[in-house]
Amino acid sequence: MSPRRSGVTMNLPAFAASRRLSAAHFTAIGALSDATLGYFDRAKKEYKKIPIREQVEVLSLVGDIALEGSDPKAHAHIVLGKSDGTAHGGHLIVGHVWPVLELVLTVPPAHLRRKSDAETGLALLDAC
Amino acid sequence: MSPRRSGVTMNLPAFAASRRLSAAHFTAIGALSDATLGYFDRAKKEYKKIPIREQVEVLSLVGDIALEGSDPKAHAHIVLGKSDGTAHGGHLIVGHVWPVLELVLTVPPAHLRRKSDAETGLALLDAC
Amino acid sequence: MSPRRSGVTMNLPAFAASRRLSAAHFTAIGALSDATLGYFDRAKKEYKKIPIREQVEVLSLVGDIALEGSDPKAHAHIVLGKSDGTAHGGHLIVGHVWPVLELVLTVPPAHLRRKSDAETGLALLDAC
Repeated sequence: MSPRRSGVTMNLPAFAASRRLSAAHFTAIGALSDATLGYFDRAKKEYKKIPIREQVEVLSLVGDIALEGSDPKAHAHIVLGKSDGTAHGGHLIVGHVWPVLELVLTVPPAHLRRKSDAETGLALLDAC
Repeated sequence: MSPRRSGVTMNLPAFAASRRLSAAHFTAIGALSDATLGYFDRAKKEYKKIPIREQVEVLSLVGDIALEGSDPKAHAHIVLGKSDGTAHGGHLIVGHVWPVLELVLTVPPAHLRRKSDAETGLALLDAC
Repeated sequence: MSPRRSGVTMNLPAFAASRRLSAAHFTAIGALSDATLGYFDRAKKEYKKIPIREQVEVLSLVGDIALEGSDPKAHAHIVLGKSDGTAHGGHLIVGHVWPVLELVLTVPPAHLRRKSDAETGLALLDAC
């Protein structure tokens, strides 16, 4: 588990590279001062950006780290709770932690690799 | 981890049976082209169906596989993100994956068994 | 995994103390007959309470147990699904289980400790 405070940049791919992790998955809870989420538009084949401009609870952050070429890449989806208790979420593009994010990183004994997918243009996990 | 593409049926109980798994738990993220969710109605003791007829992000899928009699049964709850960033969810009845679902399946060294519960009519985990 | 029925109090810190667990993390799904959630107000530095006065599905419960002084303390965030399929959530203050909560508790080989944080007044994980 790894808490991250405001002002500390949480860069999971860089962390994975420094530890030579080629595969991992994680869950986290905590809070953000703001975030940008994505929703994948099937027609445009790109992420529509959803800005969140307020302090929110991180109700869940679920994701994985896998190699894309020789570089580790993180992919995570997030659920956020606003002041009125409503939940919002999407693909996590960027978020700023305040005051803390408690992240549980699990490293399985296997390699994961992403490859570009012709249909969507996305780098998807290659299951072999 | 096991990605699943559109057109590939993800049948976790059949997968568990083929691998002779009697107990497992999982988390996943990805996206669906549509889904049917359930909300358990206390008075009627049955699931109210909630149809989701649009492309949605899978913000979290959390569930388990346990034996009910001699057959593995999957039980999962899901949180979905719509295009406007609002989150929706329930008991997962059925969902169609597009383009991908990234699922982490953990197999613990224990057996889980479901038994019919008189009060609710539901097959609940038996904790012995 | 540990199902909990209505009328059974789920007290994770007491459970952790009885098993002498100094660190653990967990995920769960199930349902509650009611709950009180919290949203951390940055200005007031306290949790705003969000009451949920209806039967709801537990779409995800993600949390951890860590020592605060010599006592185990649980910290969890929850996503709930209402009858109309909308999702709501926050920091879990209290919830009453009906009919069941399926909880997966993972005990890693490490100690976690919480310390009071001067900036927020919260007991945050100490990453030593």
